[in-house]
Amino acid sequence: MHILIIGAAGMVGRKLTAKLLTTGHLGGTPIQRMDLVDVIPPHEPQSEIDIHCEAADLSTPHTAPALIARRPDVIFHLAAIVSGEAEADFDKGYRINLDGTRALFEAIRHTQSYCPRVVFASSIAVVGAPLPYPIPDDFHCTPLTSYGTQKAICELLLADYTRRGILDGVGLRLPTICIRPGAPNKAASGFFSGILREPLVGKDAVLPVPDTIRHWHASPRSAVGFMLHAASMDTAAIGPRRNLSMPGVSATVAEQIEALRRIAGDTAVKLIRRVPDPAITAMCEGWAPGFEASRARALGFRAESDFTQIIKAHIEDELEGVQ
Amino acid sequence: MHILIIGAAGMVGRKLTAKLLTTGHLGGTPIQRMDLVDVIPPHEPQSEIDIHCEAADLSTPHTAPALIARRPDVIFHLAAIVSGEAEADFDKGYRINLDGTRALFEAIRHTQSYCPRVVFASSIAVVGAPLPYPIPDDFHCTPLTSYGTQKAICELLLADYTRRGILDGVGLRLPTICIRPGAPNKAASGFFSGILREPLVGKDAVLPVPDTIRHWHASPRSAVGFMLHAASMDTAAIGPRRNLSMPGVSATVAEQIEALRRIAGDTAVKLIRRVPDPAITAMCEGWAPGFEASRARALGFRAESDFTQIIKAHIEDELEGVQ
Repeated sequence: MHILIIGAAGMVGRKLTAKLLTTGHLGGTPIQRMDLVDVIPPHEPQSEIDIHCEAADLSTPHTAPALIARRPDVIFHLAAIVSGEAEADFDKGYRINLDGTRALFEAIRHTQSYCPRVVFASSIAVVGAPLPYPIPDDFHCTPLTSYGTQKAICELLLADYTRRGILDGVGLRLPTICIRPGAPNKAASGFFSGILREPLVGKDAVLPVPDTIRHWHASPRSAVGFMLHAASMDTAAIGPRRNLSMPGVSATVAEQIEALRRIAGDTAVKLIRRVPDPAITAMCEGWAPGFEASRARALGFRAESDFTQIIKAHIEDELEGVQ
Repeated sequence: MHILIIGAAGMVGRKLTAKLLTTGHLGGTPIQRMDLVDVIPPHEPQSEIDIHCEAADLSTPHTAPALIARRPDVIFHLAAIVSGEAEADFDKGYRINLDGTRALFEAIRHTQSYCPRVVFASSIAVVGAPLPYPIPDDFHCTPLTSYGTQKAICELLLADYTRRGILDGVGLRLPTICIRPGAPNKAASGFFSGILREPLVGKDAVLPVPDTIRHWHASPRSAVGFMLHAASMDTAAIGPRRNLSMPGVSATVAEQIEALRRIAGDTAVKLIRRVPDPAITAMCEGWAPGFEASRARALGFRAESDFTQIIKAHIEDELEGVQ
């Protein structure tokens, strides 16, 4: 099997690559080759599998046709300009997130006798406030960011190209990934991870929103699990509605903190400093509080069932099991 | 006021043009100029208003910038490759219906200190079976045609460009227009009009589906009314969800026929010949049976309330009131 990962240098891309290299197969089929592509050159891992790393921008001419000329069997399309940047730079967001994805799908369409599995990383940003809780699977997409708009458009393209038999697509609306490993970043949603990740290693963390804010989370481990399942499942069971809200854990900030207390005690919880930020709070109030995700669960997608499990996954995967 | 109609040669475009010329104003403001554009040259009506007719293809370079350079205050964007042709010609459908619309929005974005009202003709084809009845306003778009996909994508673009302050958009999901005037055509949905229009003038009509098929209709007169209301209403009341399922009449074929009987008697009804067509029946079963349209009604959009009214509108507007 030949696998292409576009966006391989990102956090999920690196974890997905590592998992595929560790297992050496996908859905029971041995992996012969992996092409790892990102705008910054992906780190070339040690492996017996034939690995090709490449820095490339999907939105420039010839990039997509060159990647597809090698006829990968499975394509993971994770590449995107993130929400804040797509909002700040209108042209760049549409060029990378929409035109780049369309170029990929068009390159596939122009390749004869070829219908690869395409796993597309969409986002809960495709919905926009006011939102019910939980959000049903048949709730409409009315995004309130250009990023969410671009993801929603790509979902529509994925479904149409699949219906036409051009590709075999599965779109995954990923929850907010928590706990994101690594250093704190400036993403507005960064505190959801920060208030757990930092105290777990004895560091301070800032909480800018009230404890009552409810949001929708899944671990990096679950995100990789979604990708692998989407890549190997029988897609005939999905039907034409190819974009699925992934399962996750709906929790208030208070519930996150109580899970931290259960695992790491009051000492850890005391490291959380409350520094209210009205702008971040206003943004959070418009974000998805949680999804039913009934279709995805019925199709075999699995996430954690509570925040204790999310924290334990982080300790096992990032802290070598030691907290 | 300066009005641009793109798709002015189509049935709704012609009726909209005629209505605007008759009233001479839009939302109380006198019309000074109208630009009528279509891929085939629109007929140039007699009027004291300054009218410019032009044959142009929105998807070719320079077309949209040239139309927008004249800075129309209100733009009606009705141009589209229809469902059957967009399904048969993948490239043409995406080029005209998606890229053409995007070119229009981009031309507006690149015009300084300009934010026109844009009324976009969307379609109930943005939803796809299985469908509830009635379809709520927050039901998701999972189109089952490339045409529906293209309309759903343009709806997302309209909302994002509006949110960004680039334009002031209102998207109208039009019901199937019934009774379409003119000669019978080969559209799969053509019989909905044919079984009324033809018997009303003493001609035979073919009914290819069972009497139990339920569908969603509005008269050409209502469609024009939706457009005028969307062009002149206070859009602040809409909020960021700029695409609205228009009101209409949900009726079974049996209910359509009973309305015909009330108005034109058994003699007219007997002109309907039942010639079952399994292919057309299968298509119809996937079409929208009807929408709640609560938001549009609350915002002042009005349609007929039953099929008798739809038939009477046709008699008044197309048969000079004589049946």
